[in-house]
Parts: sequence; structure tokens; C-alpha cells
Amino acid sequence: MNVADLPTPCLVLDQDRFERNVARLKSHLNPFGVSFRPHLKTAKSIDVARRVMSGAEGPAMVSTLREAEYYASYGVRDLVYGVGITPAKLARVAEIQNRTGAKVTVILDSLEQAEATVAWGRGARLAAMIEVDCDGSRSGVASTDASQLVAIARVLTTGGVELRGVMTHAGGSYRAANADELAIAVENERHAVVSAAMILRDDGLPCPITSLGSTRTALAAADLSGVSEVRAGVYMFADLVHCGMGTCIVDDIAVSVMATVIGHRRDKGWIMIDAGWMALSRDRGTRSQAIDQGYGLVCDVAGTAYPDLLVLDTNQEHGLVGIRGGSGGVLPDLPVGSPVRILPNHACATCAQHASYQVVRGTEVVGQWPRISGW
Amino acid sequence: MNVADLPTPCLVLDQDRFERNVARLKSHLNPFGVSFRPHLKTAKSIDVARRVMSGAEGPAMVSTLREAEYYASYGVRDLVYGVGITPAKLARVAEIQNRTGAKVTVILDSLEQAEATVAWGRGARLAAMIEVDCDGSRSGVASTDASQLVAIARVLTTGGVELRGVMTHAGGSYRAANADELAIAVENERHAVVSAAMILRDDGLPCPITSLGSTRTALAAADLSGVSEVRAGVYMFADLVHCGMGTCIVDDIAVSVMATVIGHRRDKGWIMIDAGWMALSRDRGTRSQAIDQGYGLVCDVAGTAYPDLLVLDTNQEHGLVGIRGGSGGVLPDLPVGSPVRILPNHACATCAQHASYQVVRGTEVVGQWPRISGW
Repeated sequence: MNVADLPTPCLVLDQDRFERNVARLKSHLNPFGVSFRPHLKTAKSIDVARRVMSGAEGPAMVSTLREAEYYASYGVRDLVYGVGITPAKLARVAEIQNRTGAKVTVILDSLEQAEATVAWGRGARLAAMIEVDCDGSRSGVASTDASQLVAIARVLTTGGVELRGVMTHAGGSYRAANADELAIAVENERHAVVSAAMILRDDGLPCPITSLGSTRTALAAADLSGVSEVRAGVYMFADLVHCGMGTCIVDDIAVSVMATVIGHRRDKGWIMIDAGWMALSRDRGTRSQAIDQGYGLVCDVAGTAYPDLLVLDTNQEHGLVGIRGGSGGVLPDLPVGSPVRILPNHACATCAQHASYQVVRGTEVVGQWPRISGW
Repeated sequence: MNVADLPTPCLVLDQDRFERNVARLKSHLNPFGVSFRPHLKTAKSIDVARRVMSGAEGPAMVSTLREAEYYASYGVRDLVYGVGITPAKLARVAEIQNRTGAKVTVILDSLEQAEATVAWGRGARLAAMIEVDCDGSRSGVASTDASQLVAIARVLTTGGVELRGVMTHAGGSYRAANADELAIAVENERHAVVSAAMILRDDGLPCPITSLGSTRTALAAADLSGVSEVRAGVYMFADLVHCGMGTCIVDDIAVSVMATVIGHRRDKGWIMIDAGWMALSRDRGTRSQAIDQGYGLVCDVAGTAYPDLLVLDTNQEHGLVGIRGGSGGVLPDLPVGSPVRILPNHACATCAQHASYQVVRGTEVVGQWPRISGW
């Protein structure tokens, strides 16, 4: 089947681009001798997971227990659930572990969580990592807060919970405005886990894993001394937000939404398509970047971008396509029924609106990979 | 079960508020003697649909053929698919009609679409409405463009497609800044369909239905002369965007996302929760309103809003809760594990991130209603 014959809207995955992105990060990390733990929240697909993990059993990172359950059911054995654990979720963690034999490591950054995990976990073979903050963007113990780090670690180890190590995520690196700021973010991320690990080890506590990562810092890493594990997720698909940060180029973007022209407003310079925010997501990550890409960049059916053609606005199932303001671009001639492909602001958000990938090589549909959703 | 015991994140529907919203629009429209065609794209649930439709067989509006298929399979007989039709979708329209006995009326605004529908439709009992523009916001023939309206209508009627009438949607009414501007939007919407219908009827063409609607204009309608049918969707659930426009109050909002506190950044004044943009959606509709509600207003487990407590930012599965800037509000004491409920910017977008509603009366869970998704 040709991609132009797919019912629209639908999510298309360009397998060549995807494989190129995967190979690129792999070859970048290879010289460092670190373990790679892909974040599977972008993909939510075992077919994708098998092509990005180092082996069939992992390791891998997930963002929901639904993902943990799903990947574990397909034989992935080493999973980290990357959202701070709450006591009410521990029963499900234990249940997934018992049923599948996988280890589902939880993360935490407070004594409350450590104590709740210990209280719940006696006999349940729970494992945890301590989340460390490296840039003030989200959660995590300050990497210099030795007393807090040691106190959490002691509660876990004396309470029978396996302490696997420390982890951080340089979410703040997405705000780095140039190479120098990015280099600082990269080094802060490394420094945070290495410092935290040193504090624990100096106190005689175990810390086998020192884990860090984000797509941007992973691709920019130049020194990973003391780091045992790198994580990344979006790198496998790429998106316009990452183009805006210089992490990739438009021709790297492996996911797009196929849509069909449903009408024209020639008085307004608009082409209407059948992909609105439901198919593209409401993500407008490029809004705050130097180049605002609207709700996405419009490509022809083969995935080549039309110059300055954007989805300017969306309703639930309507997309309003037009020329980027001030660009002097020209609206292509696209009659009702014409297929187009839209490159997304944010791969994670756009993919999440769809139940499967239509996998293509060039314009030939070569497969369909299901995705999961929910919690 | 108590709402506090639900696994999080999840979507909660307050049945009392929902029923009150439904009754409110019904009693507002009752004196006008119009037919009501609820837009079921917000709900995507037959359990909701049965409580908002005038009867078990409809009428109703849908935004995808997947919705049409789903509602038709539950006995809804009169459905309008509210996104401009493309030739490639006609086979599925006919298939749904043949299999279920429902009528799935398509909409169109061009000769190209009319000709394609006729070309495809011979013998297939297709029905169509002509979409008319009333405010330059989206699709539609200009309501004064008699030659285009008549030309489309003639192609349909001579080609054996049932012409059911004309419809418009005052999407632009969402931009009305005050009561006067809203009154103009309401009247423009009415005027557009009534004018278009008159053009067709003057030419001897059939136009049984004159259909208009949006939640905002439906609730504000004061004169519906010449209008046979009103449509609305979001009214059933309400949301913060509609509060910002004055269409409803916060205590009308019937949908919320249950979340759990997963940690604190006391140095930053943040409470971390396990609902990020995946659970809340990326919709930030209040960003451009007078009161920006962030990613949502935070309530206690019973659904009462904490003063000035917002989801300030989100990652995929993390929400960052804090006090509205400049409000002088005080962060409530919410330990790890505490349940909260988040009122959404945009009901359609937030609900779409979930596979079911947890239906509550007060804080008691009284049911679970599945939702559909996809196309």
C-alpha cells in the first residue's frame, strides 16, 4: 500500500529516518562505554522498543505503570518507572514484578516516600533509585544535600529495599540558548549524579547505577566520567522542537501525521485539512523558540516539507494550513482530497494521540505497529 | 468506592454538575421550539450521549467517522459528520449507513466536494448539508454567495444526494470580548443560515434544516427565528475557557483529572503531582484570556478549588503545582499521597486523553463510562 492511500488522519513512522536516529545516538555513546536505557514513553510500542533497546530484556525507562506492565509482558526485565512513586502504586509495582519476573525500579526523592516504600515493601523485593536535581526544573534531592541523600538511602537499605543508585534528568537543558549554555547543562547533569553517588559511597552505601539523560544532553555528551547509564527518548523520532534547539534537522523527523485536504478559503489564503489538534496534539513547543512552527510543518506525501507551509491553527478535527507570516512563500496547489504530511512540534505528544504507527519505507507502507496509552 | 481511592491519574465526571449543565441548556432552548443536535465529540461516550440527546435515535453531531460508527452501532439514527467530507471517506459513510441503518449526513462547502459525492454516491442514499461561514473563522461558503450556494445545491439534488439544509458554527464567538460583541456573533450566526436557506428556497431548492451552534452562542441565543436546529457540545461538561468567557462558573465544571501528590520542592514553592500534559492535555486555552489558569485549577478531593492553586507547568507525567503569581495565596499542606482534582482548560482536549470516565455523585464513585478515540 502507498502512504497516500491511508485513511486520514493517521500517524506515519518513517522507518529509515527512525533507524538513522537510533544509530546516531548509539554511535555517539559507544566510545563512552556506558549502558543505554531508552525512555520508551515516546514510543509506547514494543516494536519500537525492540529496535532501540540494547537487548530484548532491556534496560528501559517508562513513564507509567501501564507501560511497565506492557513491556514486562513482552519480556523486558529491567524497567525504571520514572515518575516519583506514591504509596498507592506500590501494590501494582509488586504485582507486575511477581507476574512477569521483571524488576520495576521506582524512583523517589523524599524520606516520606522511602519510608512508605519500606513500610509497604517488606518481602516484596522492591528496588529504588534516588532522584537528584541537576537544574531546578522538576523533582529531585539537591545533589549536595548529603544528609538527605544518606537518610533516604539508609531508610531504603535498612528496610530491605534494593538501592540501585541515583538518577537525574536535565530537563532544563531544553532552555539552553547556545552551545556554551548546553555544555554547562551537560556538565551539571553529570556532576549531579557523580556527586550524589560519591556521597552515598563515602558513607558505605551502595550506588551501582549513576544514570542521567535527556535527548539533548545525551547527543551533546563529551565527558561521561563516573556515569554508568544514559537515558533518552525523543531522539528516536526527533521533532520540530529539537530542530529549533539544533539537536536535529527537519529531515531527521521520523514521525508525521497524514492528513487530507478538505477545502479552501482562498479569500483568507487557507487550505483546510482533516487533522486538527486531536491528531496533532495541542503541543506548541516551538511557540517560544526563534522559529515558531505553528501546529506543524506541512510536507508532501513523500515527507518533503513545502517551504514555509504551516498548520497555522487547529480546531478539534480541522487544521488550517497557510504560509508563514512574512515569509513571502506561495501556497501550493492542493485540491480537495490531496494528501499531506505534518511534522510535529513534539513527538511524544503527537504520537500519544494515535493508537498505532503506519510504518513506511519511502512512500510504501511496510507495517503497522500498535501503541498503548493510559495508565 | 470513594473518589480518593481511584488509581491516578484518571478522569472524573461529576454527574450532578453534568446533569445540571444539560438541564440548563435544555430549558434555555425549550421556548424556541428548535430541535437540539448535541455535538458528541466532547463526550465520545454512549452513556453520556443517551443523557444529552432528545431521544435514543438522536439527532446528534460527530467529529469523526469512528464516532459515527460507534454511536450508530448503539442505535443513533440521525448523525451529521461535522468535518468537510473528502471523496476517500464516502465508502465508509455508505458502509456505516448500510450496516446500521443510520443516516450519516456529510457536510461540504465546494463544488469539488459536491461533484465527488455525487460521482461516488449513485445508489448509496447519501445525504449532505452545505456548510456556511458566519464569521471567517473556519470553513464554509459565504452566506451571501448565492451563485455558489445554488450551484452546490443543484449538483447535489440533480445528482441524487439528499440536500438536508445548511449549517454554520460561530467559532469566532469565542473571541467576543463582551456581551455586545457576543450578541453580534449570535445574530451573525443566525443570519448566516437563514440567509443561505432563503437563497436556496427562493431558487426552488430544498432546505429543511437550518442548523447553527456553539456552546457560547447556544446559551446566549435570544432570537432563533428561521432556525430549525441548534448544536452544542462543551456545554455538557463546561471548562475553564468557558468560565473565562462567562459562559459558566467554576462550580459548573463537571470533568476533572484526579491526581496524587508525588513530592515537593519547598525551595521553589512547588507541589509535584502525577498528572502531566498526558493526563491534562497540552491545551492552554486560558493563556490568551484575562485570567490565565495554567494547565488547570487545583481542587480538593471533593472538587472544591483551592484559592489560586494552579498547575503551573507540566512534563509528560509530572504536574508542577503552585500559587498563581501575584495572588498572595498560600500553598496548602498536601503530603505525598494526597489526592487532588484538576479542572481543565478545555474539556474536549482533556477528556480525549482518557479511555473512560469515573462517574461520581459527590465523592462516591457510582459508575465507569467508557470513551472511544481515534478515527
